[in-house]
Amino acid sequence: MTKTLAFVLYPGITPLDVVGPLQVLSTLAQIDPSFAVVVVGQDLAPLGTDTPLKLTPSHTFDQVTEPFALIVPGGTEPTLAALTNELLLSWIRKAARSAEVIGSVCTGSLILGAAGLLDGRQATTHWGFRDLLAKFGATPVAERWVEAGPVLTAAGVSAGIDMALHLVERLAGEQTARTVQLLIEYDPQPPLGGIDWRSADLDFFKPLARAMLESAMADHPALLARLTT
Amino acid sequence: MTKTLAFVLYPGITPLDVVGPLQVLSTLAQIDPSFAVVVVGQDLAPLGTDTPLKLTPSHTFDQVTEPFALIVPGGTEPTLAALTNELLLSWIRKAARSAEVIGSVCTGSLILGAAGLLDGRQATTHWGFRDLLAKFGATPVAERWVEAGPVLTAAGVSAGIDMALHLVERLAGEQTARTVQLLIEYDPQPPLGGIDWRSADLDFFKPLARAMLESAMADHPALLARLTT
Repeated sequence: MTKTLAFVLYPGITPLDVVGPLQVLSTLAQIDPSFAVVVVGQDLAPLGTDTPLKLTPSHTFDQVTEPFALIVPGGTEPTLAALTNELLLSWIRKAARSAEVIGSVCTGSLILGAAGLLDGRQATTHWGFRDLLAKFGATPVAERWVEAGPVLTAAGVSAGIDMALHLVERLAGEQTARTVQLLIEYDPQPPLGGIDWRSADLDFFKPLARAMLESAMADHPALLARLTT
Repeated sequence: MTKTLAFVLYPGITPLDVVGPLQVLSTLAQIDPSFAVVVVGQDLAPLGTDTPLKLTPSHTFDQVTEPFALIVPGGTEPTLAALTNELLLSWIRKAARSAEVIGSVCTGSLILGAAGLLDGRQATTHWGFRDLLAKFGATPVAERWVEAGPVLTAAGVSAGIDMALHLVERLAGEQTARTVQLLIEYDPQPPLGGIDWRSADLDFFKPLARAMLESAMADHPALLARLTT
């Protein structure tokens, strides 16, 4: 039986969160027809992102009920607003019941948390929002990706590519993972090298994250209080 | 005056080719309002990709006439078919006249070549199509990205992220490039390490590339002959 790998869209996401792992897993599906990729949303209308690009799903929530894997991308303020999107959370909860892989990229893990899927598990997210994971009963971990039972969470934005290649290796073996990596020519050479976490100034982001939370949850004071105290 | 960074869409692209650098340069535009990002296409209809995701431009070709930079993504057979898309080539040629940066990711450089923009220049592309660059008068180079005058070409798919971070450093300085890299948490950790080019089997791709060329150019035998002999 074909294993369906479902990427979840909602308004305002960071498109690289979804397109990084989508490109990796679509390449897997091209090589190995036992996998199929779908992009699910509430309906088939184009959705805005945090860039000028709009993204359109291939399937509605109603059309994809028991995926083998689901992967939830993140973003900035719109993702925080999605923590109270009951249609989205409801689909994720139902899909997660039978899924063998419950994945997220960046702040997508906060949505998994809001859906009640992180309680008692280790998880990660974008460095600027990592502390929030504890508010959902998770143990925040500063790793590129974290596996905890069926839950596979990645760090911020570009980390979804690394997480997805790890998933390919797990699902289809090392040789296939190497072929996918070669096909997308993932031989990263950041011009200034990797991030030097010891010298990076991370504090500048704290007031920005706080302002995003307050704006996203203006109509949900109880959740805002829970996440900020 | 605002500098417009224009990403070019056409049917069937590899979405990571555009979304990688788009995320990098959109983050730049959020930090530095002297830059603005647009995504241009022939019209505003959603376009299919080599994944189930569809992408919708923000502007039409007619609306963006003198961008500061243009960046052309690549793909597989649909990109080869686009080498004869005269509307696309015509917009690229016009935009390139005044642009200070003429960029591409992956096989997008073949489109720059078809538009006559690579003649006598060094350039790169996806490893599986690199030899074709010479057919457009370019000197193929096996680098992650290559600068030759205003022309900035990246290697396959994921290389657009590295190229775009280099461009941010060039346009806005090292500190801004480090901030963008931090915000998209680009601290790559490929699970199996980088690509080992000496041990990688690249020959398996040759018949696939040839078949894509033949299919894409079934109605353009002269161009097919020029590219395959």
